Amino acid sequence: MTVTGPKGFRAAGVAAGIKQDALDLALVVNDGPEQTAAGVFTRNMIKAAPVLWTEEVLRHQRLKAVVLNSGGANAATGPGGFQDTHATAEKVAEVLGSGAIDVAVCSTGLIGERLPMPAVLSGVESAARALATGPEAGLAAATAIMTTDSKPKQALRSHEAGWSVGGCAKGAGMLAPNLATMLSVLTTDAVVEPDALDAALRAAARVTFDRLDVDGGTSTNDTVLVLSSGASGIAPRVDEFTDVLTRTCLDLVLQLRADAEGATKDVDLIVRGAASEQDAINVGRTVAEDNLVKTALFGSDPNWGRIAMAVGRSRAEVDPGSLSITINGVPVFAQGLPGEDRAKADLTGRAIEIVIDLGVGSSETTIYTTDLSHAYVEENSAYSS
Amino acid sequence: MTVTGPKGFRAAGVAAGIKQDALDLALVVNDGPEQTAAGVFTRNMIKAAPVLWTEEVLRHQRLKAVVLNSGGANAATGPGGFQDTHATAEKVAEVLGSGAIDVAVCSTGLIGERLPMPAVLSGVESAARALATGPEAGLAAATAIMTTDSKPKQALRSHEAGWSVGGCAKGAGMLAPNLATMLSVLTTDAVVEPDALDAALRAAARVTFDRLDVDGGTSTNDTVLVLSSGASGIAPRVDEFTDVLTRTCLDLVLQLRADAEGATKDVDLIVRGAASEQDAINVGRTVAEDNLVKTALFGSDPNWGRIAMAVGRSRAEVDPGSLSITINGVPVFAQGLPGEDRAKADLTGRAIEIVIDLGVGSSETTIYTTDLSHAYVEENSAYSS
Repeated sequence: MTVTGPKGFRAAGVAAGIKQDALDLALVVNDGPEQTAAGVFTRNMIKAAPVLWTEEVLRHQRLKAVVLNSGGANAATGPGGFQDTHATAEKVAEVLGSGAIDVAVCSTGLIGERLPMPAVLSGVESAARALATGPEAGLAAATAIMTTDSKPKQALRSHEAGWSVGGCAKGAGMLAPNLATMLSVLTTDAVVEPDALDAALRAAARVTFDRLDVDGGTSTNDTVLVLSSGASGIAPRVDEFTDVLTRTCLDLVLQLRADAEGATKDVDLIVRGAASEQDAINVGRTVAEDNLVKTALFGSDPNWGRIAMAVGRSRAEVDPGSLSITINGVPVFAQGLPGEDRAKADLTGRAIEIVIDLGVGSSETTIYTTDLSHAYVEENSAYSS
Repeated sequence: MTVTGPKGFRAAGVAAGIKQDALDLALVVNDGPEQTAAGVFTRNMIKAAPVLWTEEVLRHQRLKAVVLNSGGANAATGPGGFQDTHATAEKVAEVLGSGAIDVAVCSTGLIGERLPMPAVLSGVESAARALATGPEAGLAAATAIMTTDSKPKQALRSHEAGWSVGGCAKGAGMLAPNLATMLSVLTTDAVVEPDALDAALRAAARVTFDRLDVDGGTSTNDTVLVLSSGASGIAPRVDEFTDVLTRTCLDLVLQLRADAEGATKDVDLIVRGAASEQDAINVGRTVAEDNLVKTALFGSDPNWGRIAMAVGRSRAEVDPGSLSITINGVPVFAQGLPGEDRAKADLTGRAIEIVIDLGVGSSETTIYTTDLSHAYVEENSAYSS
């Protein structure tokens, strides 16, 4: 259940002193024989220093290690912040005997403050000494990247042929008080060519991380990395690898959703019958981000009128006469007319499935979201500094 | 302070029995000599029956009367709902001795339920009998269109030359539990040509009603109408008229914001230095709809990192190095670098001004918004049916 599940990886999580009395710095090292890597990043125009750095070093599609810290996003920190990221990568390279160009950096925490670099640099040394294989090391790394996550998120999928994909993740969107970022590191011992690894990650992220929408936030630091050691010696078909990678990512995404701040509902928004996949995504995101829909779900209210309103204000092709909405199996709105009594849709449980059939095409998607609760407002207002 | 302020108008608000024991049906009648009219409507693809009707009758740029009801939106009600709207207009035409094509209809309330037509039709007869000039009649009309509004919204601006613009409004965006809609009726006794009236209303709404964004909702029923009686006999310059109309609309918009459900802050988002006005609007709306920004404001927290994040995820042209953010006069982020201590920005009062200078152009706009409070979540979850 960890980044150290696949062969060829060591990890560590240490208390570097960036935060008080908590694990706050993680290191994941690829011992090879291969060091292929790929990444996808936030589309926010205000990119944190570690994102700018890691996008750059990934141009050569190879990574020896990833260093991650919680306790500070190193975003909106200007050239000085970029120098801090660079110095962190140089330190990792020094202790591992590699080049800084082979080291990715990820940060998460408060935007707009510089990192305490003495703590970060000595933390890198401690982490290098603590590097180990096995699930405890993976768990320590997954724990060190947590911010307001209530538990670490890990996943592992093994293929019968003898290779596997592991991963860890933290946060989702801009979920946490003052804290940015969804970070995830995936590892595999499958042998995968660089371009195939890149394509597989993009395909997997497109239907998993990109389909999670808790509050519409896109942080300055979002980063998903995949590292391949090739240590299994097995080269799976690209579609096989993409499938296992996708399922590993979805496992992490559902853990992120379940632990989203203040969430009391796990909501699957299934949009069907769209004129294009982009239309389906637009509809799903508009509904997922609609506060009136989200508060109704918090109140266990199958208020399809609010859903219809949100569908109508998306930019998708919508025909009012062909729209249907089904909530937990009850067709409350059918082809433009009120359907069965909304009271039949029981939303008192945690899992809610809403099917929105636009009836104008054949494209579909699923968006993973939550409700909007008092706890979300509380955690994001009362406790911010 | 009312639609009956300008000469040539009568109004009424009655309890038709659509709601229990409350004014719920309003009638505004233009006694001329002119009956010029214009309207702007929701851009939601799911348009309520009264919107479809009123868009159609306004093609001839003339209205004798507007009938408005609360207690039901008549949206997502199919052909039957449209017949109900038509029957309502016919009834108004009958009691006033005009044609249905001269009658606009507006509805607000729960989406997806048919109106109780016997109550609506007998309410029209009562309203016709109650029609009167004077502020009491205007107040009754403004009261009858309220849903969860805590008070009626009215405005009046008089020009020294002897003409005036009056108006009333209710709700804003999708603010209320189960209830859709921002409705507004404006009246004037200025003499204005039909095309000029249409252009003036579009210009005024573009910088007032279109700049109010409480929760991103765009209801199925949003309607703003302006009726000109020409009873002053004075034909102002178009720019003069547009200016007075705009100021009347802004007065109503600020009343709508102040009474938005759960709002504890009145927030002006001033976006400057944008590459285009559309970019400025995109930035303002993205920040206004961002739940992390809104909850921080509820907590009186000048959290500029969340604002920067929201700016970066808009689709506008943004250069991280030229972005500046000033909160209640304190430059907390200046050209890409942290500025003065955020603690200097006192947000404990109700009025908050946030200036976002993109530093890439010369366009600007102001978006009017609120915070996101516990009361919003409460009113939109606990009390919905």
